[in-house]
Amino acid sequence: MKIHSKKDYPLDQIRRHLETGPIVLVSSAWKGQVNIMTMGWHMMLQFTPALLACYIWEGNRSFRAILNSRECVINIPTMNLVDQVVGIGNSTGGRPNKFANFGLTPVAAEHVAAPLIGECYASFECRLADSSQVSRYGLFIWEVVKAHVADTPRHPRTLHYRGQGEFMLAGRAVNLRDRFKTQNL
Amino acid sequence: MKIHSKKDYPLDQIRRHLETGPIVLVSSAWKGQVNIMTMGWHMMLQFTPALLACYIWEGNRSFRAILNSRECVINIPTMNLVDQVVGIGNSTGGRPNKFANFGLTPVAAEHVAAPLIGECYASFECRLADSSQVSRYGLFIWEVVKAHVADTPRHPRTLHYRGQGEFMLAGRAVNLRDRFKTQNL
Repeated sequence: MKIHSKKDYPLDQIRRHLETGPIVLVSSAWKGQVNIMTMGWHMMLQFTPALLACYIWEGNRSFRAILNSRECVINIPTMNLVDQVVGIGNSTGGRPNKFANFGLTPVAAEHVAAPLIGECYASFECRLADSSQVSRYGLFIWEVVKAHVADTPRHPRTLHYRGQGEFMLAGRAVNLRDRFKTQNL
Repeated sequence: MKIHSKKDYPLDQIRRHLETGPIVLVSSAWKGQVNIMTMGWHMMLQFTPALLACYIWEGNRSFRAILNSRECVINIPTMNLVDQVVGIGNSTGGRPNKFANFGLTPVAAEHVAAPLIGECYASFECRLADSSQVSRYGLFIWEVVKAHVADTPRHPRTLHYRGQGEFMLAGRAVNLRDRFKTQNL
């Protein structure tokens, strides 16, 4: 599978990849154990510093690693990784290395211990900015400290989960830039 | 424009419409003034009771009405409403009635004063569950108290904002239900 060559990406533009609501793969590292989980409940929260929020179920094996390390990498998969997305979503506990088991390539991050997923076209290194709502809602607030995005695909075929085993695939792009007031872009 | 005939919809299934990350139209009512805003930063937070989180900029005219009334309706538009989505996103302040100005039909909600938008295929009546993160992050946590969803379209062509005036349109559906473990659907 293709390993994307990613470039540094402006942090105040990460909404271009996250706001559409793709399913993501979250990689973590804690005490030498790396792990990956799927996640569908997340949102942009602020442009600068770049903040995003997400929900993580406390029963998920990654929950403790992410909370203890206060770091993660949020990676965006495309349709060609649907087997990995479903397989990782199905797996619980025991598997020692999801990278090896699912044919994914760990790539060293710059600012966090968790690895990027090479096969994902975009990866965002995150540090936990606020854990005050974790115990009540499982709500993590992250600062994205580094963004890596490949130049292509220009319009990635991201997966958007609809529940009940159904995904919506990213469809065509509609550019209405000339109809927006500049300050509202 | 078509006004959808909506049915009661199970609250624990609203993720089917929200998790994919559509741009939404938020209607509000406060002291007899109704308003509509566009919103792209939101996420599911809990199945039961049905909770969702969203970001609202304090500079938005709807911010005070929503915070004071502690209610809103989150409506999901489809591609045929793109003029309304962009127009409402562009408008600031003065306009007295966005329903009339944008050719939209207010429909009485059951539990909140804010109206549903008839032309949207799905509408969720929300009561503010937690405002503790509003001042710091503009983050509202809502309980969805009633969901209205039309039977058709089965696969709505929702709009997913990518920033810079670009939308991604909902593409085709992929059903992988038989590959999920039942408890992970």
